[in-house]
Amino acid sequence: MTETNTDNIGQHGTQVVINKDTTVCMSLAARPSNFGTRFHNHLYQALGLNYVYKAFQCEDLAGAISGVRALGVRGCAISMPFKEAVIDLVDELAASAKAIDSVNTVVNSDGYLTAYNTDYSAIAALLKQYQVSPELSFALKGAGGMAKAVACALRDAGFRRGVIVARNEQKGRALAKLCGFDWVATLQSEDSELLINATPIGMQGDKLEHELAFSHAQIAAASVVFDVVALPEQTPLVKCAQQLEKRVIKGSEVFALQALEQFELYTGIRPTKAQFEQAAAYSRQQ
Amino acid sequence: MTETNTDNIGQHGTQVVINKDTTVCMSLAARPSNFGTRFHNHLYQALGLNYVYKAFQCEDLAGAISGVRALGVRGCAISMPFKEAVIDLVDELAASAKAIDSVNTVVNSDGYLTAYNTDYSAIAALLKQYQVSPELSFALKGAGGMAKAVACALRDAGFRRGVIVARNEQKGRALAKLCGFDWVATLQSEDSELLINATPIGMQGDKLEHELAFSHAQIAAASVVFDVVALPEQTPLVKCAQQLEKRVIKGSEVFALQALEQFELYTGIRPTKAQFEQAAAYSRQQ
Repeated sequence: MTETNTDNIGQHGTQVVINKDTTVCMSLAARPSNFGTRFHNHLYQALGLNYVYKAFQCEDLAGAISGVRALGVRGCAISMPFKEAVIDLVDELAASAKAIDSVNTVVNSDGYLTAYNTDYSAIAALLKQYQVSPELSFALKGAGGMAKAVACALRDAGFRRGVIVARNEQKGRALAKLCGFDWVATLQSEDSELLINATPIGMQGDKLEHELAFSHAQIAAASVVFDVVALPEQTPLVKCAQQLEKRVIKGSEVFALQALEQFELYTGIRPTKAQFEQAAAYSRQQ
Repeated sequence: MTETNTDNIGQHGTQVVINKDTTVCMSLAARPSNFGTRFHNHLYQALGLNYVYKAFQCEDLAGAISGVRALGVRGCAISMPFKEAVIDLVDELAASAKAIDSVNTVVNSDGYLTAYNTDYSAIAALLKQYQVSPELSFALKGAGGMAKAVACALRDAGFRRGVIVARNEQKGRALAKLCGFDWVATLQSEDSELLINATPIGMQGDKLEHELAFSHAQIAAASVVFDVVALPEQTPLVKCAQQLEKRVIKGSEVFALQALEQFELYTGIRPTKAQFEQAAAYSRQQ
């Protein structure tokens, strides 16, 4: 805090206009990214809204939520590791947050905090949009927050035949039980029709960033491949699935769609498709 | 909060560049002005600093200070009515805040909050800069927060012959006693050499905005006139004193100087005189 912060301005910053009446939205994370700051500020400027969005690195969730209330912060994205702990600090859970007992968005209406999970809503919307049949058998890799959002969205969309793949037996079994699916530590079979990666495998900067989340044979045998990793847009899994001409759902789509829902919750405004796509593309230029 | 905020952008806003690494400074007040937001953001841009400044309207001081800590907000200006209540919420009082038991600035160094009073420092600096002799007799009108800053600065500069003018007897007597001065409810005499207005008389929007804080005869008899009102820059008192060719110290100078000290406390950087004057002029264009 005592060092002068002159880094990363300009080429990585988004221009906003600010005054005393500017409405503030923000995000809380142990390790913030620039996605939200770029997406929301870009749309605020494009639509001429007197809003500003700022990502905050945070360790004290309760203190931060006190701040959201006291400062009248309109909206607050909740990232790892606060998605479940924040439940006790809000006034109401909307259906999307109730569906998975996890929160990624808090909306402050004159001091009354309502919690949402726009990851869950976005995943549910993408399963519909890509017409992924609930008759498909699936394998979902991961047992963290995003895996939970995917598993609950699959359950609520009527998927019945599926397996949670997670090396952490306790977390894997718990998630499988929550949604009525099976659990395996590693996926041996090559007969899943829908493959979903909800681990950091393939994520920029991860130690497994160049790895495939599923084997080539497993991908070849599937009809739909869904990678929750948003950065890079073209993960090894996405590239491989595209080469094999599978139906592919990308993490960048999840991110953009959930951010769009946040934007609407915060501002009450639905951008046009062109505005949305421009903001999504801009937010990916890290 | 639920209405869409599209007001006051553009012509009244200051452009800033923002990303996840941007350092945040802010202000807390029951009724925020645009002064600080304009002054600080203008200098951040002029100096290429990755900072943003935002004024917040606030009723829950403790919650807001929890937010300052949890969000790593670097600096926080404290306005009415929080200047004394905030003392219990910080970790240390610097000399300027101790001198008057009142805080207008909090600096957060990795979670350790130090409180300052840059109004006090600015007033003390201006008394020196304008070479106002402590031998002068003075009349100080007002008994609120700014009057306290002035009275303590006068006391600490060695002024001994003076009177606090305040219709509120309890507050007037308390301030007079604190600094070893006299108190009167209304100023009848016309022999004070230094006249200081620390009330809202002459302030834009106040019901007495067109009034003189002292009588024409009192102003004529004085040698130095100091108006703490910052907006407008040319209050009736300032104009009258200038016409009578008195030495005049203006509230806009207090504001700019105290904001400059805040800027240095937050960023560790001292702008050039030209940069400072440009930011001060910009901040007055409300």
